[in-house]
Amino acid sequence: MAIQGVVYNGPHEVAIEEVDDPGIQDPTDVVIDVTSTCICGSDLHMYEGRTAAEPGIVFGHEAMGIVDEVGDGVSSLEVGDRVSIPFNVACGHCKNCEEGKTGFCLNVNQEGSVPAGGAYGYVGMGPYQGGQAERMRVPFADFNALKLPDEGHEDDFALLADIFPTGWHGTELADLQPGESVAIFGAGPVGLMAAYSAKIKGASEIYVVDRVPSRLELAEEHCDATAINFEEGNPVEQIIDEHGGEVNKGVDAVGYQSVEPESVRDSDEPYDPTKENPGVLINQLIRVVEPKGRLGIIGLYVPEDPGAPDTISEMEAQGRLGIDFGKLFEKGQGLATGQCDVKSYNRYLRDLIIAGRAEPSFVVSHRVGLDEAAEMYDRFDNREEGFTKVILEP
Amino acid sequence: MAIQGVVYNGPHEVAIEEVDDPGIQDPTDVVIDVTSTCICGSDLHMYEGRTAAEPGIVFGHEAMGIVDEVGDGVSSLEVGDRVSIPFNVACGHCKNCEEGKTGFCLNVNQEGSVPAGGAYGYVGMGPYQGGQAERMRVPFADFNALKLPDEGHEDDFALLADIFPTGWHGTELADLQPGESVAIFGAGPVGLMAAYSAKIKGASEIYVVDRVPSRLELAEEHCDATAINFEEGNPVEQIIDEHGGEVNKGVDAVGYQSVEPESVRDSDEPYDPTKENPGVLINQLIRVVEPKGRLGIIGLYVPEDPGAPDTISEMEAQGRLGIDFGKLFEKGQGLATGQCDVKSYNRYLRDLIIAGRAEPSFVVSHRVGLDEAAEMYDRFDNREEGFTKVILEP
Amino acid sequence: MAIQGVVYNGPHEVAIEEVDDPGIQDPTDVVIDVTSTCICGSDLHMYEGRTAAEPGIVFGHEAMGIVDEVGDGVSSLEVGDRVSIPFNVACGHCKNCEEGKTGFCLNVNQEGSVPAGGAYGYVGMGPYQGGQAERMRVPFADFNALKLPDEGHEDDFALLADIFPTGWHGTELADLQPGESVAIFGAGPVGLMAAYSAKIKGASEIYVVDRVPSRLELAEEHCDATAINFEEGNPVEQIIDEHGGEVNKGVDAVGYQSVEPESVRDSDEPYDPTKENPGVLINQLIRVVEPKGRLGIIGLYVPEDPGAPDTISEMEAQGRLGIDFGKLFEKGQGLATGQCDVKSYNRYLRDLIIAGRAEPSFVVSHRVGLDEAAEMYDRFDNREEGFTKVILEP
Amino acid sequence: MAIQGVVYNGPHEVAIEEVDDPGIQDPTDVVIDVTSTCICGSDLHMYEGRTAAEPGIVFGHEAMGIVDEVGDGVSSLEVGDRVSIPFNVACGHCKNCEEGKTGFCLNVNQEGSVPAGGAYGYVGMGPYQGGQAERMRVPFADFNALKLPDEGHEDDFALLADIFPTGWHGTELADLQPGESVAIFGAGPVGLMAAYSAKIKGASEIYVVDRVPSRLELAEEHCDATAINFEEGNPVEQIIDEHGGEVNKGVDAVGYQSVEPESVRDSDEPYDPTKENPGVLINQLIRVVEPKGRLGIIGLYVPEDPGAPDTISEMEAQGRLGIDFGKLFEKGQGLATGQCDVKSYNRYLRDLIIAGRAEPSFVVSHRVGLDEAAEMYDRFDNREEGFTKVILEP
Repeated sequence: MAIQGVVYNGPHEVAIEEVDDPGIQDPTDVVIDVTSTCICGSDLHMYEGRTAAEPGIVFGHEAMGIVDEVGDGVSSLEVGDRVSIPFNVACGHCKNCEEGKTGFCLNVNQEGSVPAGGAYGYVGMGPYQGGQAERMRVPFADFNALKLPDEGHEDDFALLADIFPTGWHGTELADLQPGESVAIFGAGPVGLMAAYSAKIKGASEIYVVDRVPSRLELAEEHCDATAINFEEGNPVEQIIDEHGGEVNKGVDAVGYQSVEPESVRDSDEPYDPTKENPGVLINQLIRVVEPKGRLGIIGLYVPEDPGAPDTISEMEAQGRLGIDFGKLFEKGQGLATGQCDVKSYNRYLRDLIIAGRAEPSFVVSHRVGLDEAAEMYDRFDNREEGFTKVILEP
Repeated sequence: MAIQGVVYNGPHEVAIEEVDDPGIQDPTDVVIDVTSTCICGSDLHMYEGRTAAEPGIVFGHEAMGIVDEVGDGVSSLEVGDRVSIPFNVACGHCKNCEEGKTGFCLNVNQEGSVPAGGAYGYVGMGPYQGGQAERMRVPFADFNALKLPDEGHEDDFALLADIFPTGWHGTELADLQPGESVAIFGAGPVGLMAAYSAKIKGASEIYVVDRVPSRLELAEEHCDATAINFEEGNPVEQIIDEHGGEVNKGVDAVGYQSVEPESVRDSDEPYDPTKENPGVLINQLIRVVEPKGRLGIIGLYVPEDPGAPDTISEMEAQGRLGIDFGKLFEKGQGLATGQCDVKSYNRYLRDLIIAGRAEPSFVVSHRVGLDEAAEMYDRFDNREEGFTKVILEP
Repeated sequence: MAIQGVVYNGPHEVAIEEVDDPGIQDPTDVVIDVTSTCICGSDLHMYEGRTAAEPGIVFGHEAMGIVDEVGDGVSSLEVGDRVSIPFNVACGHCKNCEEGKTGFCLNVNQEGSVPAGGAYGYVGMGPYQGGQAERMRVPFADFNALKLPDEGHEDDFALLADIFPTGWHGTELADLQPGESVAIFGAGPVGLMAAYSAKIKGASEIYVVDRVPSRLELAEEHCDATAINFEEGNPVEQIIDEHGGEVNKGVDAVGYQSVEPESVRDSDEPYDPTKENPGVLINQLIRVVEPKGRLGIIGLYVPEDPGAPDTISEMEAQGRLGIDFGKLFEKGQGLATGQCDVKSYNRYLRDLIIAGRAEPSFVVSHRVGLDEAAEMYDRFDNREEGFTKVILEP
Repeated sequence: MAIQGVVYNGPHEVAIEEVDDPGIQDPTDVVIDVTSTCICGSDLHMYEGRTAAEPGIVFGHEAMGIVDEVGDGVSSLEVGDRVSIPFNVACGHCKNCEEGKTGFCLNVNQEGSVPAGGAYGYVGMGPYQGGQAERMRVPFADFNALKLPDEGHEDDFALLADIFPTGWHGTELADLQPGESVAIFGAGPVGLMAAYSAKIKGASEIYVVDRVPSRLELAEEHCDATAINFEEGNPVEQIIDEHGGEVNKGVDAVGYQSVEPESVRDSDEPYDPTKENPGVLINQLIRVVEPKGRLGIIGLYVPEDPGAPDTISEMEAQGRLGIDFGKLFEKGQGLATGQCDVKSYNRYLRDLIIAGRAEPSFVVSHRVGLDEAAEMYDRFDNREEGFTKVILEP
């Protein structure tokens, strides 16, 4: 049998094609009918040909839907259950899963290029067909599927698979406590979710740094944040001026493709606003955060970047970045990194949505049919103004 | 009035000279008669002329003694009390002190070159005369002085001012838990104290990396550690082979003056075993520690290194190091850094000494009169075999 | 010199009288001109003659004001500084203070009837003249005084001395995390502050139990809480019905003077709605909180109750209560108790007020001159409807 | 097919009988050949007829063995694997299991008398045949079975199913930190394991209270503990005298069947050393532990005690105990209770055993064939001197 799915056919080419219906493969699987599935900024890394992804891969790791088939070894799910599926595939019984580190499962991806952890529809993250499709197989389903109420909040719940927990994770990695101030670099969907998480947790001051006005407006409107446009001046200085000193904590929601703000460079070469500088943001965080503060790094950093632009040094293309470690040490700071362990948070974020205390869907700019995926990838990749988050509906 | 103290007279020159008796300056001061005061590896940074230290400074930040004068505003100390004085000078009432971050006091060093924190007898750390002298003034004495029993354990207690808590701090920054395995780079006094702390806390396996056989022997004998000599092969590979995989946690007890092991370099130039490579050790830790593991960085890193050797790049001399951040992120690791907040631990370490469960003085190789300070500095700086820790006795 | 203060003259009798101007007594003192000072529910224990308080005591432990005199040993405060004074008197350098347990200082009250901890104007809590007066001496002032902005938020800041931190403490003792549900027993000022804290911290569902409609309305209006009136049915059953099961965490903001709801008793005697049952509330919490949940107990329990009503057993009057320990154990629950360590929270709560994210003054029902104190005590003690919190203005 | 197992035939009667070979019942099961299986003190509650246990039940919840059959849905275990099986049966995917609270699984025992959690061979804990038998079925085996090395440490590993983790749990519930002092009430197998855990974790002083000399000797010899014989005087006073004050933390390893020491009672009736007083031990802990200290309660307390002796009040028989709550509150203490979540610790305790740093088998007094079970139950129940822990070998 065949289903429709978003297939990668090479750089900047995706298409809706027929792909295998995954079906039950192991007794602990379920198969869901996908009802909502998002395009993620990290999908664009593959789309742009900047990874080792081969044509033929079905994209999609942010899915929710209705359970349609249930394996014999599944005990807590039934056909008809509405579920959110974390982007991480996790076994539930390795040391890391047992300790809540489900983004770094030791069992589900032993052949992958990463040291630990699996995901759906992503290069190097294991053989799991993606969720931008009509149906998706969910391994270790008792562990991976999160039950949802039968109705309501479809757009909010769609964000439980990845970006809402990932933004939350940033504030957890930074050990953000109620009453503290925080600087969040990046107002893309994940940065906005980090700011929104900071608001929910009772941060006192939230500074969000970006250069896209519409994104900064979302941060102000929905996250009670102070917008910092890095094209209007050095963001570190802007925050310190505004706040009257360094902030308690910081979050990097951008990653290795960060661009160097004109305001922080000390070079004589003409400024190129698209030129990447993969370490620049970490070093700004070190400066803007107080001594003993903590940095949460959720923006992606990679140990190899095959499609790195020429302006990046060879060393940087291998993920070795110039970090102001002397300053970091002098300030006694710490940092924590890595992709989100979705299961650590999704249950509680779901409950906040049900209770009406969280409505993360303010970041959703588009909800369209699965058949419009190709156009959506193209427009998202062009960073079209006002294009923050797309939900596809199979 | 005058007292004898160890005075810095320029690179590689210290002498016992008469210096001012500090006396009570503020109502919250006490003055102690120093009974034991250690030379620290970090004193050698100044001794070697590798800092901005000016001639005339009295060295010494590891002191203990007997209270001899008590200010009017001191309520819990009396003449005759035997006390250990943490190397950090701390006010006790700023935000950081109140939260236990006494190494980063916001009040005691507002003119210093560091963002926060003060210390005795150290360049940039405030106007506090050093403890390698007959007497030492202790500001905010109620807060800073730790009472000791009247008698016994002099050598063990002498290590409470700095290196025992600092080694312990490394295991705290790495979040080492009972039953976990840990790799500790550096078997100098601080590295040995980190390994000893790991043993006390119930680590399951302790790997200590160095190239000095006598130090590695101390690690094996007193810390139940497995010695890893990095001159005998890549230490990361040695540990992974021995352990059967990556370890849970890691500690850097070396810092920016780390040398590059021949076994880990990929250069064609002739190998120079003294050549520094300030980032090499962090990158080894990233490799030897498991995904989601934590690194505790207690070895010193500096944001400027005026006496850096020519073999160090200009960027490195400003503390910007090439860190394998892509790998760190991919492994979801975290790290924490900075000088020790001695007061967070010294009370409990004292109690372990009193109870006979900790005897850190196994690292003490020499106990001599204050008048032998110049010779001791010279021999310590030459890394004489068997020269681990010197206590001076005024 | 003399100042005006609220003096206790025996059960149900207070008067404004001349009392000694405290002045500076130790070099580490400041004296403040009190600008706002609240009457606390715990003052009523003394007012009602239910403690060992002797006539002559000056009441008041919730004060804020302007620094007017500064001792020689004070380094961070100046005349004119506006400050909030925690109700706990704490030395800042004992083991407990250093670890943030400032409600249990080991130095300030060695003669008191309690094992640790001091307070202003309270029987058994040390020789510290109360703050319901024109001026108040603040010992260890660098440590105890919290600096405020020069202007604004007077009513909100007035609550930083006790009830806002105390309510917050309840949620900390219960280990309330974002997204969790919580049941709070008691909608007096402290219970309301606990509910407000839960809202700030991102609780998903907040249930507040009381029987006074006006207080329950405040909980609904300002804390987004679900009101549970225990006169309308067993509160445990009401919450479980409403919530669909047990809640994650619980807070007791009532204490030993709790009354037995008619709905939970199994006695044949006629119901007396004023009859106290000091353990009833703990046992309700054990039932309403889920297995492994945590209970935060901030309502006062006492080891002796000299004025206990006859309906209380002798054992209960000595603080030995019938606790359903078998049920507690079977559910694997934990609980934590005790008066608030104000300094652990007041800095961050101040910042939330400054940022406009917290406005706890919604509980303030009256702000009057100090000369109206006697009337206010009388009306507060009569639990007049709508009488939640009184601020006196000297 | 049939296997041999220890069957309960009524109070004080057990016999080796043929029972059903459990076999694989669900795809996620394994069946193990049991190689070691211990008798637990809690088995005696059933043996003595003090529970609702019906004849026919197969006892045993402390088992280890070799995997012999593997269900289709099991992915990480193979025939021949040597495994330790935690006494808790846990599903691995409910909220509690995911958060490490595996002693309170919400799925495995929905019909049981307890609010959450399952176990093998125990009344009210679910339909899981016990492990004092030749073979045992392990549900959710990927999650529940802990892999062991193929050889060695059989007696040490046998204690991983229950008492070593349970003793450790006591120190965790008490939040025992390195360098702290602790009082442990009870030197039975679990109390000894708590003391041994305290030693491994680096406690500074360990006080163990009991009245059986041979048990106190084990505490001194293997746990570096100070023995406190409660028949020689009030244990609270003995500890405070010996220690010079209250201790930091306390552990109750006795539970509701605690007897009242003659030294602490204030009654005129003749003293009966066997008379139970279920709350006495909690109240002693409240007294011996310092303000803000924490109590870890691992001794069993039950909400109904059908076989309670006549000397127990009706209220106590329902688990409502007279707790000195006023004193607890005044001291700002906290406590945590409940059966152990074995999986939170067993991996790390296993590694300590493998590394040679833990040898808990010092508590094992007898290792005999399964056929001697009846005699062993009888002698264990008689509290024969020197009878601490029995391992049966099927």
